[in-house]
Amino acid sequence: MPELRKDPITGRWVIIASDRAKRPSDFNPEPVRPKGNGSCPFCYGNESKTPPEILAYRAEGAPNSPGWSVRVVPNKYPALGIEGELDRQGEGVYDKMNGIGAHEVIIETPDHQQSLANLPTKNIEDVLWAFRDRMLDLRKDDRFRYILIFKNHGEDAGASLEHTHSQLIALPIVPRSIREQVNGARQYFEYKERCIYCDIIRQELEAKVRVVSQNEDFVTLSPYAPRFPFETWIFPRRHEAFFEQSSPRNFENLAKAIKSLLTRTDTVLNCPAYNLVLQSSPLRDSQSEAFHWHIEYMPRLTRIAGFEWGTGFYINPTSPEEAARYLREAPVEDAVGV
Amino acid sequence: MPELRKDPITGRWVIIASDRAKRPSDFNPEPVRPKGNGSCPFCYGNESKTPPEILAYRAEGAPNSPGWSVRVVPNKYPALGIEGELDRQGEGVYDKMNGIGAHEVIIETPDHQQSLANLPTKNIEDVLWAFRDRMLDLRKDDRFRYILIFKNHGEDAGASLEHTHSQLIALPIVPRSIREQVNGARQYFEYKERCIYCDIIRQELEAKVRVVSQNEDFVTLSPYAPRFPFETWIFPRRHEAFFEQSSPRNFENLAKAIKSLLTRTDTVLNCPAYNLVLQSSPLRDSQSEAFHWHIEYMPRLTRIAGFEWGTGFYINPTSPEEAARYLREAPVEDAVGV
Repeated sequence: MPELRKDPITGRWVIIASDRAKRPSDFNPEPVRPKGNGSCPFCYGNESKTPPEILAYRAEGAPNSPGWSVRVVPNKYPALGIEGELDRQGEGVYDKMNGIGAHEVIIETPDHQQSLANLPTKNIEDVLWAFRDRMLDLRKDDRFRYILIFKNHGEDAGASLEHTHSQLIALPIVPRSIREQVNGARQYFEYKERCIYCDIIRQELEAKVRVVSQNEDFVTLSPYAPRFPFETWIFPRRHEAFFEQSSPRNFENLAKAIKSLLTRTDTVLNCPAYNLVLQSSPLRDSQSEAFHWHIEYMPRLTRIAGFEWGTGFYINPTSPEEAARYLREAPVEDAVGV
Repeated sequence: MPELRKDPITGRWVIIASDRAKRPSDFNPEPVRPKGNGSCPFCYGNESKTPPEILAYRAEGAPNSPGWSVRVVPNKYPALGIEGELDRQGEGVYDKMNGIGAHEVIIETPDHQQSLANLPTKNIEDVLWAFRDRMLDLRKDDRFRYILIFKNHGEDAGASLEHTHSQLIALPIVPRSIREQVNGARQYFEYKERCIYCDIIRQELEAKVRVVSQNEDFVTLSPYAPRFPFETWIFPRRHEAFFEQSSPRNFENLAKAIKSLLTRTDTVLNCPAYNLVLQSSPLRDSQSEAFHWHIEYMPRLTRIAGFEWGTGFYINPTSPEEAARYLREAPVEDAVGV
């Protein structure tokens, strides 16, 4: 019998259609592997093909030349423009503003053949530090209300360049799904005087059935009401609202948790296309007791993705208990840690 | 300069990235065309390959035999089960219920080679009558709160069978995006004492820039803040909350409006995969002044669909004014009407 489950934060219901149960091998997506680096603008020697770098961690070399390990550049085709003042206007029943914002690309490694999953933990940690540095810099800009950090891995997940990278978009508004999470978490806090995410983490660590892995600082789990098969969330154990204000000691263990998750999913799901999204508190929100930053991982395994956009209603053929078990039991080397 | 626009009903912001402007030919999706009908369960003579029919409009023949023009059957692999009582349960911070619901398939024509766009208007009207008949029947069932009707056309839109059909899902809950629309429309009604959709229709008919076509009873337009390129909505001109209680005179003109839109999009976008979603009022809602039923059309043209799921934030490379102009000026025969 299928089950209807409600996400306790947003109130979104999903169908867990266990009658249509799918095993990892049933999805059989095209594995994502880099093909060639012909004239890739993210490779060493091609630094002039991107706009000048905003930030780079480098052992040697001048800016915009080889020698870097992580490099941040403006998006060459930005969705938003960085220059100008916000201009809010009405148009009858409608509201608009000019598209002010920042759109940056975080190039995670100079090595075209690598994926984030395959990078050494130390390099993944550097990517996280780059996220933090850019967020701390951009949050000084009064025009911005939210900074979105996400990764599209593989063409099916929306990546237009195969060289591994993440993106950052700073926005003068708070995206709706973030606002919904914040509102849901606040309602819970007002009622219980506890963070709902902390309660979820506690309950999951006791029940154990949806836990994928854990280390000293992070817990990786399948959410109770996932929209997609093998959707997985990574939470810091200690309550924190803002990723960019996270305790520095966290970054090493977050890098380990990410590497562990991506290694497991690459093993179980045969290197699927995926999206990672960092869910952090809106920049100007002070109510830091209610929201708890985390990372959401969503592999692109199914195409039953049409009407969900029109309805906000999801049918998921893999239960999170089953997904967590596959990921937990994946044969990963000890070297991966966690 | 890109523009940030807010959907006045849900409050969702989208980026209209006109700097990345895309013309219809830039999308270049694989055109959706039926291939073969080998052993298609929706063709004449194969009626026994589906569960027994719930409804059929037929000029001749016994139930579950050829002779029908529209046929409704239970989904062979239903996402929800029709038998049993609702059983609501808690599990710590979580809530669930058993997956009670109906999942039906509306086979729109026996002709495997046809698409909904190519059917004669009269046949499209029959499909709409079938939607209505099933909704009127299922709304008698006290367990249901919402009836979702949608169409996935083409593999990229989630269709698993190519023979043209729609689906119906009756649910014991109201999907979140419907609830959001209803709440948004109610807030507006409380403030203005007017239906927000009626106000939108009035403003659009005056401005004319986003109107695609209109007839006596329906208006087809590009919404102000569309999530997707060429997203298009069809509204009844007169205020009605429930599709299934729509005035019978509407059905002929709605069929014409749908045929007109699909012919235009097939022409301009080269037969793209698409989703149609009927947005009607929740079954048990009585506040019929605020919500206004309509149909949403979403072609699947872009793959920049990854992080949108994680954020509810959309970047649309085609402005609705431009999309409406292409569709309005599409060379369609007079026979299409409207």
